[in-house]
Amino acid sequence: MRALVFDGQLHLETSLPIPQKQNGDALLKIRCAGICNTDLELMDGMYGFSGILGHEFVAEVIEGQPDLIGKRVVGEISVVCGHCDFCQQGIPSQCRSRTTIGIRRYPGAFADYLPLPPRNLHIVSDRITDDQAVFVEPLAAALQVTEGIHISPRDRVVVVGVGKLGMLVAQVLKLTGADVVGVVRREKQAKLLARWGVPAVELRDLPEQSADVVVDVTGLAQGFADALWLVKSRGTIVLKSTYNDFPQVDMTQVAVREIRVIGSRCGPFDAALRLLERDLIDVNSLIDGRYPFDEAVTAMHTAAQPGAMKYLLDF
Amino acid sequence: MRALVFDGQLHLETSLPIPQKQNGDALLKIRCAGICNTDLELMDGMYGFSGILGHEFVAEVIEGQPDLIGKRVVGEISVVCGHCDFCQQGIPSQCRSRTTIGIRRYPGAFADYLPLPPRNLHIVSDRITDDQAVFVEPLAAALQVTEGIHISPRDRVVVVGVGKLGMLVAQVLKLTGADVVGVVRREKQAKLLARWGVPAVELRDLPEQSADVVVDVTGLAQGFADALWLVKSRGTIVLKSTYNDFPQVDMTQVAVREIRVIGSRCGPFDAALRLLERDLIDVNSLIDGRYPFDEAVTAMHTAAQPGAMKYLLDF
Repeated sequence: MRALVFDGQLHLETSLPIPQKQNGDALLKIRCAGICNTDLELMDGMYGFSGILGHEFVAEVIEGQPDLIGKRVVGEISVVCGHCDFCQQGIPSQCRSRTTIGIRRYPGAFADYLPLPPRNLHIVSDRITDDQAVFVEPLAAALQVTEGIHISPRDRVVVVGVGKLGMLVAQVLKLTGADVVGVVRREKQAKLLARWGVPAVELRDLPEQSADVVVDVTGLAQGFADALWLVKSRGTIVLKSTYNDFPQVDMTQVAVREIRVIGSRCGPFDAALRLLERDLIDVNSLIDGRYPFDEAVTAMHTAAQPGAMKYLLDF
Repeated sequence: MRALVFDGQLHLETSLPIPQKQNGDALLKIRCAGICNTDLELMDGMYGFSGILGHEFVAEVIEGQPDLIGKRVVGEISVVCGHCDFCQQGIPSQCRSRTTIGIRRYPGAFADYLPLPPRNLHIVSDRITDDQAVFVEPLAAALQVTEGIHISPRDRVVVVGVGKLGMLVAQVLKLTGADVVGVVRREKQAKLLARWGVPAVELRDLPEQSADVVVDVTGLAQGFADALWLVKSRGTIVLKSTYNDFPQVDMTQVAVREIRVIGSRCGPFDAALRLLERDLIDVNSLIDGRYPFDEAVTAMHTAAQPGAMKYLLDF
């Protein structure tokens, strides 16, 4: 099969074997996949990654349980043990021996085929297009913000770092009725946010200590420092970032100003599918371009340009 | 009046004027005061402090509202505006223009007299001794841990940095029924914790990622890193520390492991008084020694010795 591999260098393999199925696994044929910042960070050396990249996708089940065959599906990215304390408590995303599609010790979705346990799969209804379905994984991650903390419709919320994921976070937060603004550096971002009625501002246009909630999606150490500057005492900072560096911040402020810092990772696929079915989240505006999978290397380099939004790979 | 002043140097003044009362203030005559780590940190240059030190005390009201005269009282340390958003929301401890007794732009309690607004005062019942009353302020701060987060009786809780404040935190947490252990470095701390049935352990004796809740009372940047090592995914770190340095920690872990970091400052005096009335918190064991106020400079230097617990100043 074809697969996009990173092993220090990025290259498209054309005759890799289909990854081995485990007992009970379904075999998926990938239809379309999306390039995420995590893919780009893995190419920059994060986690010392080596293997097939990719974890945002929609696929068709071609082998497995009869009731799944022929269905379009999306897949949760943590492949879990099912019996550790976290799995038992219904928190498989924190499974102690989890592997992660295209990120940690599990093959990625930038490939013709991917085996997955049925419990990872969510069937995609006909009301959702392939393009929309590719966004289920990052939209679920955006929804993990509201899974993790209560956003009141009275809250002033600032999203810092409004890239691909931040755009979804901003839209999800806007649905709460809260007063949401996005801190952006580019006109392109400001125009996108305007579609959903989210004002775009520069950091220093906002008053210090004025936000009830700040969501940091920057991926930069500076993002946490900015969030600390923006958040009110007793306010909440949600970290959706994997940082490229150790933030240099005055944690004493967190104690004295009684700030809450909430880490947030993968989220609920079902909720993401419900919002897409109802057309409550606009993902199509986030698509900057698409490439046939054979041009995946070019696609990755294009997606790595500053300010790039979502690039899709068609199989 | 006499007062212990720090202005780059520590010295006992003997003929300072009594600080000016504001409209409606009560005037307190201090009976006994306690030396806190914050006092020692202010002497080390924190906040560029200059003025009369001290904020843990019990006093007698000698001027003010007739119903307060002659009463023994303790005092909340934030002197607030009463009309900012935080005051209006009932969170005076985060008042935007607050001053703080002996810490920030308000005279301290290491002095014969202290003026305070009546709303800062809590009357001390006869069932509480002066020595116990001096601990109301730090005990309230310890109770702010359980004010800020829900501790389940099923939780495994680790207190890191069991000094003066940590000893109170450990006792408060023990009352929840949770499985509480303290990370200590000295035999003296271990013996104190044993009085309340709290096992003392060394950090590396505990399994990595095993605690539901870690309370960091170390005051050291390393304390936050240790807390991150100890806490489970989806667990909570409570920061009771003012740090001497910027912690060098991998905030990506906070995001990916979905950890909650909760800052915690001043707490509920009423609850502290209730626990002391019922003898549910042992503070007498924490008193390492006492000095007449005229020997306050010596007392401060003694209290600054490593491993020292509480030193009291008698007026």
